[in-house]
Amino acid sequence: MRKLLFALAALVPLTLHAADKPKNIIYVISDGMGPVYTTGYRYFADDKSTPEIEKTVFDRLHVGSASTYPAAVSGVVTDSAAAATALSTGVKSYNGAIGVDVDKKTVPTILQMAKQKGMKTGVAVTSQVNHATPAAFITHNESRKNYNEIAESYFDQRIDGKFTADVILGGGTQYFQREDRDLVGEFIGAGYEYLNNINDLPAIQPGKPLLGLFAPVGLPWALDYPQKKRLLSLTQAAVRNLENDKGFFLLVEASQVDWAGHANDVAAAMGEMADLADTLEWLEAYVDNNPDTILVVTADHSTGGMSLARERAYIWKPDFIHKLEHSPATIAQKLVFKPAGAQREKLAKELLPLEFEAEELEALKKLTAVDQQGAYSWVKSVIDRETHTGWTTGGHTAVDVPVLAKGLGAEAFVGHQDNTEIAKKLISALP
Amino acid sequence: MRKLLFALAALVPLTLHAADKPKNIIYVISDGMGPVYTTGYRYFADDKSTPEIEKTVFDRLHVGSASTYPAAVSGVVTDSAAAATALSTGVKSYNGAIGVDVDKKTVPTILQMAKQKGMKTGVAVTSQVNHATPAAFITHNESRKNYNEIAESYFDQRIDGKFTADVILGGGTQYFQREDRDLVGEFIGAGYEYLNNINDLPAIQPGKPLLGLFAPVGLPWALDYPQKKRLLSLTQAAVRNLENDKGFFLLVEASQVDWAGHANDVAAAMGEMADLADTLEWLEAYVDNNPDTILVVTADHSTGGMSLARERAYIWKPDFIHKLEHSPATIAQKLVFKPAGAQREKLAKELLPLEFEAEELEALKKLTAVDQQGAYSWVKSVIDRETHTGWTTGGHTAVDVPVLAKGLGAEAFVGHQDNTEIAKKLISALP
Ligand SMILES: [Zn+2]
Ligand SMILES: [Zn+2]
Repeated sequence: MRKLLFALAALVPLTLHAADKPKNIIYVISDGMGPVYTTGYRYFADDKSTPEIEKTVFDRLHVGSASTYPAAVSGVVTDSAAAATALSTGVKSYNGAIGVDVDKKTVPTILQMAKQKGMKTGVAVTSQVNHATPAAFITHNESRKNYNEIAESYFDQRIDGKFTADVILGGGTQYFQREDRDLVGEFIGAGYEYLNNINDLPAIQPGKPLLGLFAPVGLPWALDYPQKKRLLSLTQAAVRNLENDKGFFLLVEASQVDWAGHANDVAAAMGEMADLADTLEWLEAYVDNNPDTILVVTADHSTGGMSLARERAYIWKPDFIHKLEHSPATIAQKLVFKPAGAQREKLAKELLPLEFEAEELEALKKLTAVDQQGAYSWVKSVIDRETHTGWTTGGHTAVDVPVLAKGLGAEAFVGHQDNTEIAKKLISALP
Repeated sequence: MRKLLFALAALVPLTLHAADKPKNIIYVISDGMGPVYTTGYRYFADDKSTPEIEKTVFDRLHVGSASTYPAAVSGVVTDSAAAATALSTGVKSYNGAIGVDVDKKTVPTILQMAKQKGMKTGVAVTSQVNHATPAAFITHNESRKNYNEIAESYFDQRIDGKFTADVILGGGTQYFQREDRDLVGEFIGAGYEYLNNINDLPAIQPGKPLLGLFAPVGLPWALDYPQKKRLLSLTQAAVRNLENDKGFFLLVEASQVDWAGHANDVAAAMGEMADLADTLEWLEAYVDNNPDTILVVTADHSTGGMSLARERAYIWKPDFIHKLEHSPATIAQKLVFKPAGAQREKLAKELLPLEFEAEELEALKKLTAVDQQGAYSWVKSVIDRETHTGWTTGGHTAVDVPVLAKGLGAEAFVGHQDNTEIAKKLISALP
């Protein structure tokens, strides 16, 4: 029997049978989250009051891995746009493509198909809502850089006469409240409820279409929120708002794991992972209570070439990150606004409670009040040295990413698959 | 039904039921093979004559991932000894431990238990046979560095009056043919067949215990063999020799993926991965033909912090490696034995057929005839630049490693697990 079970799991086809179709699909993309991020988070989150290292929600939900390479024209290292297009349409495209194929022809996305099938649809992200990943689910554009066009299409595009997305939560007022076009006003005029304060989300009455933009561009780092989380709030509000008899499709994106990777900022990365972990724990319980839902979690690629250990030492110690009360970027900002000398050193020791090396103190002294990037680099280099974190790039890498799944049909995601196969399996799960 | 299947797979306990117990266990450890190696190999192995990127045997057999952290006393970055002890006994220990726990007490290993149960046992590795990984399956020692003691215990130790391992294939004459003790002679005297030429392996008559030592320490790089492989030969001979009515336990180690990682040598790493891939393809077919066998493949840790892309470029191009007719170490050796100047540059262009940058040519000129390490670094830096490979360390990192499985009971390995759980599951599969 066991052998049979496994043989079946390994051979699950790309289509699910009608009887097994989930009512709701929750698709979580953690931008930039290669396997080193889920591993690192386990050691970061470890409860030091127990002798064992606890498994995390990433471990509990883990079922396999995915390849992320884009269309051949872009080599084997994807950007977020091509990867999101693969994950939303099942079609590989060039780096930069938003819901279009290599010939720049539009390809239907799973979110659009869900809308056509009568489901409610939504996105909840920590980037601007018109950033590459959510854009490749909602709309089509030959370039991810056309932020204004993409934002406008969120209002202008209709699927069978309806708006494409019923719930849009994230950042982006800079693109939606412009001098030349007030998309926020247009959404309100069309019946959307609009919020600009993330603290108002819990009080929202379900049922109305909802636009929430909580920052000019991306949201602040998780580490800079009082509760060090905000993806959980967005996700809870989106699910509550989307629940209905015909089911829903929700894209959740932990957008800024990638941004931390680009910045080579391990503290920010762990902060983003913690926010995502809280979100996944809530979704895990949601699927337990709603077993007709499928939850699939993956990443579009890995970022930064982060490594847990560096320079021949067999050490990775993330514990220090728990002592930070702000993100490294915010700490850097505070440092450069202080006059140089003893006062700055005192502040640095408060914000980064560890012993600085002589060279680090020398470099700290030399920072000028305008050099915020230099100060940010300084803070990160101290944290990398303390935690023994290594990096190879400010860009993406090609390593396969984890695949997590739970709920009705989750067994289809066991083992290794291409990112386009994830999309095809989920598209086959639509009604 | 599907939902039930998946729920079962996710909840598979650490024990297998008697009816499902495999006859043969083949346990493959690819030393140092983090997820970046299996991913990289896919792009290295890609058949350029077809438009798609083919899945590899690593993809086909992939079922999950494993954490690798050692006992708390050694932090979260393991060495090969502690990891092999976890994988062979189910017990975490300190870095350096060979089949002993944190208190240096011996812990029974799965190979020893298999022997006790009447199975035949063997190891086939590309390192010296008394290196950390095989040692932690055959014997016990408080330190991996006690190479001579470990080698002697292979002869001196008995399990129920029998030798521990029926088949021992790899390198290591330096430790087994010493002035103070000729272990090879002792093994021959005790009835073992002995080989020192890997080309003699196919002609071996099955049934006799077998010792094969094909190098003073580790075997040469796969890239330096005419067929660019040797793990496949060792594995085929071991399986043929171990097959018997009561079943067998075989440890196969692709030992030198790790060595390539320590050297930050991506060409050697791909060469080792190709040898392993051939071995796994043969084992995959073996399990198809012998469905009462279980094959489990994992790594003990990842090495080098290798990344597929570096320095902000979204590029990883391993194709150039296929043009190499020797390992980078051998190319380096050839270069430093040539006089400096035009002749060396000509030879370098033959051995590394690409366009050198001006700085690379300058550095090539400066190499002295004794500076083999410098020459090796030069060759690797040219290959890293051409392929866009990044590295962060000459040591290990903590990232989770892939788990592959096929055959009777393979479903127990689906999802995420700790390395000790792999051992416990396999131990429970013993008769
Ligand atoms: Zn991305
Ligand atoms: Zn190792």
